[in-house]
Amino acid sequence: MPDPRDFTPLISQRTRRGASDAIRDILAAAASPGVLSLAGGLPAAETFPRAAVRDAVDRTLSHSGTAALQYAPTEGVGRMRECAAELAGRSGAPTTAANVLITSGSQQGLSLVAGAFIEEDDVVALDDPSYLGAVQTFRAAGARLLPVPCDRDGMDTDVLEARLAAGVRCKLVYVVPHFHNPTGAMLSPARRRHLADLADRYGFLIVEDDPYADLAFDGIRHPSLELSHAGVIRLMSLSKTLCPGFRVAALVAPARLTAVLAGAKQHTDLQTNTFGQHVVAELLGTPGFLAPHLAGLRSFYRDRANRFAEVLAERTPWLEFEKPRGGLFVWCALAAPNADSARLARAALDAGVAVVPGAPFCVESDGTRRLRLSYAALTAERMRDAAGRLDIAYARTHLVPQG
Amino acid sequence: MPDPRDFTPLISQRTRRGASDAIRDILAAAASPGVLSLAGGLPAAETFPRAAVRDAVDRTLSHSGTAALQYAPTEGVGRMRECAAELAGRSGAPTTAANVLITSGSQQGLSLVAGAFIEEDDVVALDDPSYLGAVQTFRAAGARLLPVPCDRDGMDTDVLEARLAAGVRCKLVYVVPHFHNPTGAMLSPARRRHLADLADRYGFLIVEDDPYADLAFDGIRHPSLELSHAGVIRLMSLSKTLCPGFRVAALVAPARLTAVLAGAKQHTDLQTNTFGQHVVAELLGTPGFLAPHLAGLRSFYRDRANRFAEVLAERTPWLEFEKPRGGLFVWCALAAPNADSARLARAALDAGVAVVPGAPFCVESDGTRRLRLSYAALTAERMRDAAGRLDIAYARTHLVPQG
Repeated sequence: MPDPRDFTPLISQRTRRGASDAIRDILAAAASPGVLSLAGGLPAAETFPRAAVRDAVDRTLSHSGTAALQYAPTEGVGRMRECAAELAGRSGAPTTAANVLITSGSQQGLSLVAGAFIEEDDVVALDDPSYLGAVQTFRAAGARLLPVPCDRDGMDTDVLEARLAAGVRCKLVYVVPHFHNPTGAMLSPARRRHLADLADRYGFLIVEDDPYADLAFDGIRHPSLELSHAGVIRLMSLSKTLCPGFRVAALVAPARLTAVLAGAKQHTDLQTNTFGQHVVAELLGTPGFLAPHLAGLRSFYRDRANRFAEVLAERTPWLEFEKPRGGLFVWCALAAPNADSARLARAALDAGVAVVPGAPFCVESDGTRRLRLSYAALTAERMRDAAGRLDIAYARTHLVPQG
Repeated sequence: MPDPRDFTPLISQRTRRGASDAIRDILAAAASPGVLSLAGGLPAAETFPRAAVRDAVDRTLSHSGTAALQYAPTEGVGRMRECAAELAGRSGAPTTAANVLITSGSQQGLSLVAGAFIEEDDVVALDDPSYLGAVQTFRAAGARLLPVPCDRDGMDTDVLEARLAAGVRCKLVYVVPHFHNPTGAMLSPARRRHLADLADRYGFLIVEDDPYADLAFDGIRHPSLELSHAGVIRLMSLSKTLCPGFRVAALVAPARLTAVLAGAKQHTDLQTNTFGQHVVAELLGTPGFLAPHLAGLRSFYRDRANRFAEVLAERTPWLEFEKPRGGLFVWCALAAPNADSARLARAALDAGVAVVPGAPFCVESDGTRRLRLSYAALTAERMRDAAGRLDIAYARTHLVPQG
């Protein structure tokens, strides 16, 4: 197709703002042959419930063949909305289908929330560091970010309160309360209560992005924020617990907000794919499927996390980290004073292992010495190889004097 | 879930602008038991290639089971992009996978284009009347609409040229060149050339929304605009030709534009569902499937259109219309001087038949006497019933003197 014109002047500000992506190149390189990936993002394909999916697909084609191939309501297929309400209800919150909007992955939930509520220069508060996809989505929507420091108990809500009391008008607060990406933090019960209280006093909404709640290695189900509070929009991904390929996720919110977001979704893509919704609803509705599947998943990732912690301790003693309690990531610090994780990440790729440097996750905080590693994708043997390659890259960049 | 707060003040301008939807209520009512729908939108479920889908799903699960359940690149699954390039190439345009972005339905293509190119107050020219989903999407993005009159040969490009020559700076021109929704018009070859020429001279992009090209009752494949011109973004839906339930569509554009739009899509929903892409690619790649399927589809809708034209001539002689040459719709005019299609549509629902009034499709033109009817969903017998009910509603509203 001929392509002589320069279209750059036609591109909107919004799109230019969202265009930069420091990690995209690394993830692309991570998929190259011969590269071992600790860069993460992909769940382990071994955990996909393939036989159960096949059964659910068969039943869908036999019993709902025509409906599964037709258009469906923007809000979602009825059965899928009910399934999602039931899942949300496991945390104790009384949820009905009217609270549920089925989205094309949780990323769409984020994007719909940003579009429906953020005007140019509206303030969005979030953990610093935060999930990169959220940072980029809110930035692209024109938000001013209010980075809030966090520790192993999550967002420091006292700092948030001080900023609010000083007059910062905040429209949204974004949190990943369980096994935070990238830090692995768990928002403490006291801070949850504090955050809900601040939302009431200052009139902001809370976006609770919760893809890892079911990956607690101790098997304990922690309560979600929505339990305690009306102004919470919860994003429930199934990508890490079932599989990502259907792009079926659920947004759970007060019914009035769900209706607003459904209106926005209609313009965006009319509806989430009908076939995937039928299959996922069939899968989740299979008696005796979910609980053992999740138990197996937790055990799988717990083993990988434990093994990975051993491998890192042995092969990369220059890395500081806390053993993960759930989720898919280890947030590491480089101990050396001259450490630079971006330089290390480039050298690591040359040595055949992909890792993600910390800086892109950080808004104001310093990520220069930080590294996010994922243990999701590699077997024990490959983990050892990957850590060995990382150690070689480290030796090249940090032990040898630089020219 | 408790819901005490009023969230209205938090909603963005963008979302408020997009919220009105005159047709949504009618479509909801059209799905009620006992209501016959001429309101359209849904393709006939009898045309879905169910057996071929089942085979394609089986092969996907057997051969690509893991890949089909995993994340995929934002641009789309490789095989699906190649299939789409081949489909686009049928019109004669040299197209490769690099020109293709797989979208979650064509509505997402529209929404991505609006987001990537439209700033507040940018001008978008379109046929008046136009497809309502496009009107709403461009409005929600903040565009100023430049309605251009159209006739049975599509957009009057002389009028467009006059406006451009008078100094109107236009960023996008939106057309549905084949079997336009709602008018059924076909953009003539001379006007296609004229439009492409104007795009070069005035530097705008053309969005060619083309869901009905394969539904030409004479079986002739009309060339697409992209053939002749670099600045064309073509939206290729499969919802009307295969089925809507997978939400797999293709956007075809110069590779540099495809890359920009893929960046925007990443923030929107990461990617279109992997499973559906594998199944649709498998289906389209099945030797001997597509051509006979499309021939059967054309024959099916041609029969329905012919039958519908007979039924309308017989039962609703007060309606003026041209016999459709393709697509799914008849754009009718009410002959009576006191005619009001919105009033008729309300009365029709009371009489048990759903129809769509013309006004919502119209930007500046007068749709008061217009009605869009679809013959897609009803058998001959039900068509007769529906037309009979419409005639009763007409008698109630237009023949009887109003109080």
